[in-house]
Order: sequence, then C-alpha cells, then structure tokens
Amino acid sequence: MTADFQKWAGNCQTRIEIFLDDRLPETNREPERLHSAMRYTVLGGGKRVRPLLSFAAGELNGADEARVTVVGAAVELIHAYSLVHDDLPCMDDDVLRRGKPTCHIEYDEATALLTGDSLQSMAFQLLAENQVTDSAQIQLEMIKQLAYASGSRGMAGGQAVDLASVGKILTLPELEFMHIHKTGALIRAAIMLGAHCGDRLNDRQLEQLDHFSKCVGLAFQVVDDVLDAEATTATLGKTAGKDADNNKPTYVSILGVSQARELAETLRRDAFQSLESFGEAAARLRQVTDFIIQREF
Amino acid sequence: MTADFQKWAGNCQTRIEIFLDDRLPETNREPERLHSAMRYTVLGGGKRVRPLLSFAAGELNGADEARVTVVGAAVELIHAYSLVHDDLPCMDDDVLRRGKPTCHIEYDEATALLTGDSLQSMAFQLLAENQVTDSAQIQLEMIKQLAYASGSRGMAGGQAVDLASVGKILTLPELEFMHIHKTGALIRAAIMLGAHCGDRLNDRQLEQLDHFSKCVGLAFQVVDDVLDAEATTATLGKTAGKDADNNKPTYVSILGVSQARELAETLRRDAFQSLESFGEAAARLRQVTDFIIQREF
Repeated sequence: MTADFQKWAGNCQTRIEIFLDDRLPETNREPERLHSAMRYTVLGGGKRVRPLLSFAAGELNGADEARVTVVGAAVELIHAYSLVHDDLPCMDDDVLRRGKPTCHIEYDEATALLTGDSLQSMAFQLLAENQVTDSAQIQLEMIKQLAYASGSRGMAGGQAVDLASVGKILTLPELEFMHIHKTGALIRAAIMLGAHCGDRLNDRQLEQLDHFSKCVGLAFQVVDDVLDAEATTATLGKTAGKDADNNKPTYVSILGVSQARELAETLRRDAFQSLESFGEAAARLRQVTDFIIQREF
Repeated sequence: MTADFQKWAGNCQTRIEIFLDDRLPETNREPERLHSAMRYTVLGGGKRVRPLLSFAAGELNGADEARVTVVGAAVELIHAYSLVHDDLPCMDDDVLRRGKPTCHIEYDEATALLTGDSLQSMAFQLLAENQVTDSAQIQLEMIKQLAYASGSRGMAGGQAVDLASVGKILTLPELEFMHIHKTGALIRAAIMLGAHCGDRLNDRQLEQLDHFSKCVGLAFQVVDDVLDAEATTATLGKTAGKDADNNKPTYVSILGVSQARELAETLRRDAFQSLESFGEAAARLRQVTDFIIQREF
C-alpha cells in the first residue's frame, strides 16, 4: 500500500467520519440511549471499505466528493445496521466487533434491535434529503438500488441463506449465491452509487463496472474467510475462527486456504480486466481492490 | 359506519392487498423461508388504517388512486415491520398478532428479524421505483418524510421511549411525547404522503393537515389504550391487557377509562376543526377519523 493511497484513504475515512458524526442525532437528544447506541455503533471504527469503493468509483467520472460522501455514508449505515442485527443472540450471537463489545452487550438487545432499524431508516433519509446527483430522477434510481441491495433480494436475503446453510455442505455455486447477496449486493451498491454521483457512464461502462463489483464482492468474502480461518481474535478485532465453530460453510472449508487464496487472485485479475477501458481514471479502484484483497485484518 | 364508507374502505383495502401481493417476492423465490415470512406478516390481515388515511388525504386534492396505493403500501410495510420487531422476545415478547401466531413463533427469531429488516427496505424501494407524484424532487421529499417518521426521531425513537418507560410513572405530556413518535409519526406520514400524491396544497393547508394528523395519531393511541384495557383477546386479535401486565403507562392508567374516552372525543373535535377549510373534499378524512375513534377492536 503506497503512502499516496494511505493518505487518500485516510482523507476519505475522515470525510465519512465527520459527515456521520454531524448527521447522527446527538446523544443528549431524546431518546438518548438509542442515539448513544447509534453513535457507538457507527463512529470511530471500521475500515470503511464500502465508502472507499464509492469514492474510488466516483473518480471514474469526476464525481463531486461532497456528494460521494453522502452516498458512502448511506451505504456504511446499511452495513453498520446489518452488523448490529447480525451480532444479536438470535443470529450470530457475537460479543465482539471492531475490538469493542457488540451493541447488545454494551447496551441491551432491544436497544440494539432499534439501533439497527434506525440506522437503516437514516441511510434512506440521507440519500433523500441531500442532493447527490444533478437529476432527481437518477437519485430516485439510486435509492431504489440501495433498497434492493439491502432487502430480501440482497443483503438480508443473503443472511437468510447463510442461516439456513449452517451445518450443511454447500457446493461452490451455492456458496457464491449466498455471498453475492450477503456481501456482494451492498459492495455493488457502494460502487454503482459512487459512480452515479458523477457524469453519466454509458451502458457498456456500467456493465463493466457491474462485473468489476461482482468480482470485488466475492474476493472480499474469500479473503474474509481466509482471514477468519488464519487470524487470531486480537488482530481481527472480532471473534476469530467463529465460522468453523458455528459449522458454517466457507471458501476455506470447501477449497482449503491455499486454493481460496488462488481464487482471490483469479477474481482480482478478472476485476482488473473489467476496468481496462477506464484507463487511468480507474487507478483508485485498482488500489482499493488491492487494499481489500491484500489486507491482513 | 355507513354502507358507503364500508364499501370505500373495502375497495382501498383490496387495492393495498392486491398491490402488496403482487410486489412481495414469491415464496418459491430464494430465500424461500424469508419470503414466506414476509408474505405471512403483511398479507391477509390488519385494518390498513394508515393506507385508509393516505387514500382519504389523497381525496383532498385529486390524487391518482394508483399513486396513493404505492404510498399506502409503503407506509403499511413500515408498520408491518415494526410489529414484527415489536413482538420479538427482546421487545414485547408477544405470541399473537392479528389473530395469528406472531412471526417469530410461526417461523423463528432470526427469520422474524430479517423479515422486519427486509420489509423496511422494501418500503423505500416501492417509494423510489414507482412514480407517486409529478415531480421527482417532491418524491425525494416524500421518501425523506417516511424515513424520518420511521427512524430514531420517529417511530423507532418512540419505541425506545416506550421501553424506557416500563414501570415508570409518566406525566401526560411525557406519554404524549412517546406516542407522537411511536404511533403518531407514521400516521402523520401516511396522511401527508397521501396528500403529496395530488395537486400541491398551500402552506396553510399543509399546516392544517399536519395538525389534523397529530390529533388523529394521538386519538388512535388513546382509543388503543382503552380497547386494550377493556377488550378480550378474542375480539382484539392480539393479547389483551398486556400493557397493564407489562406495567406500561397508558392513557387509561393515567386518566382512567372514562376520561380517556373524553380525551379521544376532544381530539376528534380538534381534528375536525382543522379540516374545516377543506369543506367536502375532507369528507373521507372525517369518516376515517370516526372509523379510528369509534372502532371496537
């Protein structure tokens, strides 16, 4: 990771942090406990991978950074809500997230439930109340894309498949189906919404970007599985090895670590290929892709 | 309730039912269990009070019924999601809703959690992907209003206050604050969004309609409290007397049944007064108001 990329990524992360800090309701505003839990969940942690992808996609076509910030923040709120609900006892029942107690441990289950619910509402609120593109019609299309990516035919649907797969042996295509929904849909939305903030791309370009999104989304999950299998809880900031403990199928359980790493590399090449026609404008997207695939936690 | 009103309400309810049945993902679509739970939760039950308010508000200014149907369905999805999450063990822990087992009893807790999450996403999806007004800019404003009404400064916030109030003695203003958020915000959104589907109202009219919404929202809750205190589980279709059992403050616990009934009547008069300048165009809104206040279950 070059110093230039580190600086760029740091700037993006700061922009997102400042924006969310500004827009999340203050903790002295009723209901205080809920607003405190929302801020606890969202602020001061996380790699902000999805917003980084939004910013990098925005650079394809000259998107205004302030607009991409809104989009990145909205996607991050959806991601944050999904983590809070995912950690609940009736789901993954996890106590550690981003190195801190999970929301229902720090607060309580009911507050965690309402925190997730409220963060989801807030994501759509942000996308509706801030101008993120020149055309209100395209902005509606962006809200639709985020809603699809979040719902039963996107992320929430992927989580349902994930739950149903515990203790089962999945084929590689079945595992892929699950992750395209569970992780891929929101990563795709982060990229496409970032690009929608700038000048219009033509259909061919949108298609290429869409294929890129799919590769990156899968690669992200493959790497996640490898890290989960190899890392310790301390470096990961969340409970390590829990997939195996929970008897969940992963890329590692199906392919083994070494073939899973190879798959990530194949997906990386495929992703880069679909960016070719963008030339230098896609430099940041390539860097974020490497950041995702070569990360160590 | 006149035969004419019954017929109108039946038509509205049918429109909503057909539209939601058409738009909710089929149960043979993966993830099947989640889609089945979504349909179980939303279809074939409920008085559809909020959509009725949307339709009635749309009649103030000639709104197209197909457009109001979208708005009413979106609001109803938010309402349905809130019920599913509200019934979970970590919240009200209820087993009966609309005369049927609650979602987490019929399915399981994780599925109920994801069902609520997915219904919320779908509400915003419907409002973004269907044209509900001539101006895309106003449509964005409508999405913003629904998001606010749903989130921590609306319905979810009201539920947080509700949870925090268990076992406490609230003053009447504190109880009102809770209900303006918990029930009132979404009822207000139903009415205002219905009106936004038609010709523009002027600021004075919007103000009057807003005041009407506030009165109806509170009246709805006052009547709910009275019914909960008086009804049996069989007529109510949900567990009766649970507010008292849960040691929750209600209008009945603070005022007693007879004064609570008087308060509902006062709110009814106040609501009607704010509709005066609309004349005959507000006839349906008056009827729905009476339907809400004079209902027996």
